[in-house]
Amino acid sequence: MTAMPKLTNLDARVLPVAFCEAMSALLATRFSLSLPVREHHGKDESPFGIIAPDAVAFVNSTEEAAAVMRLCAEHRVPLIPFGAGTSIEGHILAPHGGISLDLSGMNALIAIHAEDLTVTVQAGVLRKQLNEEIKHSGLFFPIDPGADASIGGMCATRASGTNAVRYQTMRENVLALTVITPEGKIIHTGTRAKKSSAGYDLTRIYIGSEGTLGIITEITLRVYPQPEAISAAVCAFPTLSDAVQTVIETIQMGVPIARVEFVDALSIKAINRHDKLELVELPTLFFEFHGSDNGVKEQAETVQQLAAEHGGHQFEWATQPEDRKKLWNARHNAYFAALQLKPGCVAVVTDVCVPISRLAECVMATDVDLQASSLPCPIVGHVGDGNFHVIILVDPNKPEERIEAERINANIVERALAVGGTCTGEHGIGLHKMGFLQTEHGDDALDVMRAIKRALDPLNLMNPGKIFELK
Amino acid sequence: MTAMPKLTNLDARVLPVAFCEAMSALLATRFSLSLPVREHHGKDESPFGIIAPDAVAFVNSTEEAAAVMRLCAEHRVPLIPFGAGTSIEGHILAPHGGISLDLSGMNALIAIHAEDLTVTVQAGVLRKQLNEEIKHSGLFFPIDPGADASIGGMCATRASGTNAVRYQTMRENVLALTVITPEGKIIHTGTRAKKSSAGYDLTRIYIGSEGTLGIITEITLRVYPQPEAISAAVCAFPTLSDAVQTVIETIQMGVPIARVEFVDALSIKAINRHDKLELVELPTLFFEFHGSDNGVKEQAETVQQLAAEHGGHQFEWATQPEDRKKLWNARHNAYFAALQLKPGCVAVVTDVCVPISRLAECVMATDVDLQASSLPCPIVGHVGDGNFHVIILVDPNKPEERIEAERINANIVERALAVGGTCTGEHGIGLHKMGFLQTEHGDDALDVMRAIKRALDPLNLMNPGKIFELK
Repeated sequence: MTAMPKLTNLDARVLPVAFCEAMSALLATRFSLSLPVREHHGKDESPFGIIAPDAVAFVNSTEEAAAVMRLCAEHRVPLIPFGAGTSIEGHILAPHGGISLDLSGMNALIAIHAEDLTVTVQAGVLRKQLNEEIKHSGLFFPIDPGADASIGGMCATRASGTNAVRYQTMRENVLALTVITPEGKIIHTGTRAKKSSAGYDLTRIYIGSEGTLGIITEITLRVYPQPEAISAAVCAFPTLSDAVQTVIETIQMGVPIARVEFVDALSIKAINRHDKLELVELPTLFFEFHGSDNGVKEQAETVQQLAAEHGGHQFEWATQPEDRKKLWNARHNAYFAALQLKPGCVAVVTDVCVPISRLAECVMATDVDLQASSLPCPIVGHVGDGNFHVIILVDPNKPEERIEAERINANIVERALAVGGTCTGEHGIGLHKMGFLQTEHGDDALDVMRAIKRALDPLNLMNPGKIFELK
Repeated sequence: MTAMPKLTNLDARVLPVAFCEAMSALLATRFSLSLPVREHHGKDESPFGIIAPDAVAFVNSTEEAAAVMRLCAEHRVPLIPFGAGTSIEGHILAPHGGISLDLSGMNALIAIHAEDLTVTVQAGVLRKQLNEEIKHSGLFFPIDPGADASIGGMCATRASGTNAVRYQTMRENVLALTVITPEGKIIHTGTRAKKSSAGYDLTRIYIGSEGTLGIITEITLRVYPQPEAISAAVCAFPTLSDAVQTVIETIQMGVPIARVEFVDALSIKAINRHDKLELVELPTLFFEFHGSDNGVKEQAETVQQLAAEHGGHQFEWATQPEDRKKLWNARHNAYFAALQLKPGCVAVVTDVCVPISRLAECVMATDVDLQASSLPCPIVGHVGDGNFHVIILVDPNKPEERIEAERINANIVERALAVGGTCTGEHGIGLHKMGFLQTEHGDDALDVMRAIKRALDPLNLMNPGKIFELK
């Protein structure tokens, strides 16, 4: 794996006239062939350029999406589900043409079952919107990938983020789905019961399938009671290794920490500029504790003691909601802040996840790589899970910088796989990591994935060309 | 759904001579055609009689199991993986003949990564053995279905049990698998990283597949630090409804309780007899709290207050390990204690799981049904998850009692499905619940399962005839 693949629409073609007529009859102006609309749907947060679909269909209901799917099946038109367009690995680009199915209009909260700690939403509901809408019930949905992604998209990429260390990922927090199969049938997977042994785990088959097996239109999620007490803090450490070691010991002691995020000195510099803050420009951990008043106090004391043993002394606390919000906004802005370190750049973002005992060596070896590179490469990470990201900033007009970025990425992935880790903790494969998937799983396991794809989508209409080549 | 299906070997046949010769060459005396051995492998804890395989193969390694699988594929011989034989729904019976693959010899702990909170085991390792072998590391594996099942079997049925309310189920606690495909290839799913978005979730495809898609031979599990403090207690309540309501409020408040088990008055009576205890013969909750000293104290205080509001006053505490063990042994013996209420009986055990807000009405309606029945039917349940079991005791020589048991079971399932629950929280489908699976998922979702089965096991060799009919 060396250079970033150069992609354009591989076999984009004129859509069949009969298909366009039928789509227009179904959706009227919500079926669009306009170039700006297509381009908007052919661009995500990946470093790929625009690879636009041939048309965009905006749907408002599961039934409408199923009708679109049936037309696509009838006319052999590829379909790419589109939520908020925040994916990072090229998931929603259209190298084989076809239509983009925009689900952002399906943004209704269908049901809150506060007493069961579940909510059911349409796939286009955004993460922040969901939390706003359930706030009055004393509930919250913890999965937080940073971007204001759609819940459907978060299912499709098996997203996680800053809270996963305590609340896990989309895999564990989705109870049930409504899915449209590639032939246009509507199925329901799972139930609102907390657990089940009823047959194959269809829910988990679609979670992480990146739109290649069906269209997720409704989702039932686990939500959580808002903790009685929350506190957050930042703490700077003399070295990267000290910060990472503090996290490792925190996890190994079983402290039920809600978030623990690593941000390196360069990222802190970027954040300070972007958010007009004055954080010490050293490797830093962002912490959040959830629990009862006493529980939070106890957790914080334990972690402070561990931090102190690694030279992390000054905890800056944020107990008021507005201070916490400011702190976490700064953390979430790290990506955008980083982009401003190099005006006009695009980012190649790495995403390995390793067993936590191997985290320190992986981050340290990565740091050596980065120090040797001419590219600015801030590091941030959900280190409590062993997951970290390098934001490699490249000039899109300098091919040699992209080659360099891919070289760094490949090194990071190789090291992660060598210690029993994965090439992607939460971003998915998309177009960008197909080669790494092969290395990670091997041919025989990939053949099992291919067999499932062929069985469920025999016409290869669903987001074709992603995750793996069909051979 | 009325009567328990009457099953015998539907198409048992003489195994091909060439197959038997090749198996004997491979395994020598570990390939057995002896009737007692076959019968032992054709009987589980289900109320079905013996439905024996045509032969039994005992394997000691993944490579050996793969060699057996390849011979089965070559000679078109069905294969049924066998762990400890503790399944409840007929999973390991052989209605289509073939061989039973006994993995109990694969009982090695392959690796402990204490610092990562993971262990890797062979599929035949038993649950209690695992906990014994990792005790010295300060770790424990929480999933506890009661029976001393094999870890492979627990994967195959997506098992859970008393600790799931805090530690979830096999679905969430398996990181990686080694699986033999029906063509005899060895694949590895997942990694030791805590999370991953690398392609389809192959791990979850095999978890809960009941041996119908491949042979699970090695498993990497999440394990947990032994809590700093553990305490357990029993508390009796004036009515079943009071006990269940206490649980519901505990869960809704977000108390991180480690176990909360409901045991009805009849079960307590059975337990008192069986374990020579003197528990008050009333609806009772068994509690266990894990955490720091303060955390456990805080949880216990909250729950005691909730219990008191529902008439549950006298908490009997067991803080010493030996007292806790006695208490939980009693709970785990509830099944065997129940069997002694009616000497010579067999049990039909129900297993629905419902959203917790609907638990009280489901248990109460069930109780009305049971009061009206002539059969003794103790109730126990992992009520923190909304999961409860009725142990319906039937005389195997009285067909009318089995019909009555199936009628009760069908009513319970129907009510569970009507409130958004599932027909099986943790036991699986096997042979017994195939009709209910159809009702729960509907034809179109079941067709997706069938498509996966056909794609991954085109010769239908893996545990054929289970979970669903292929049509």
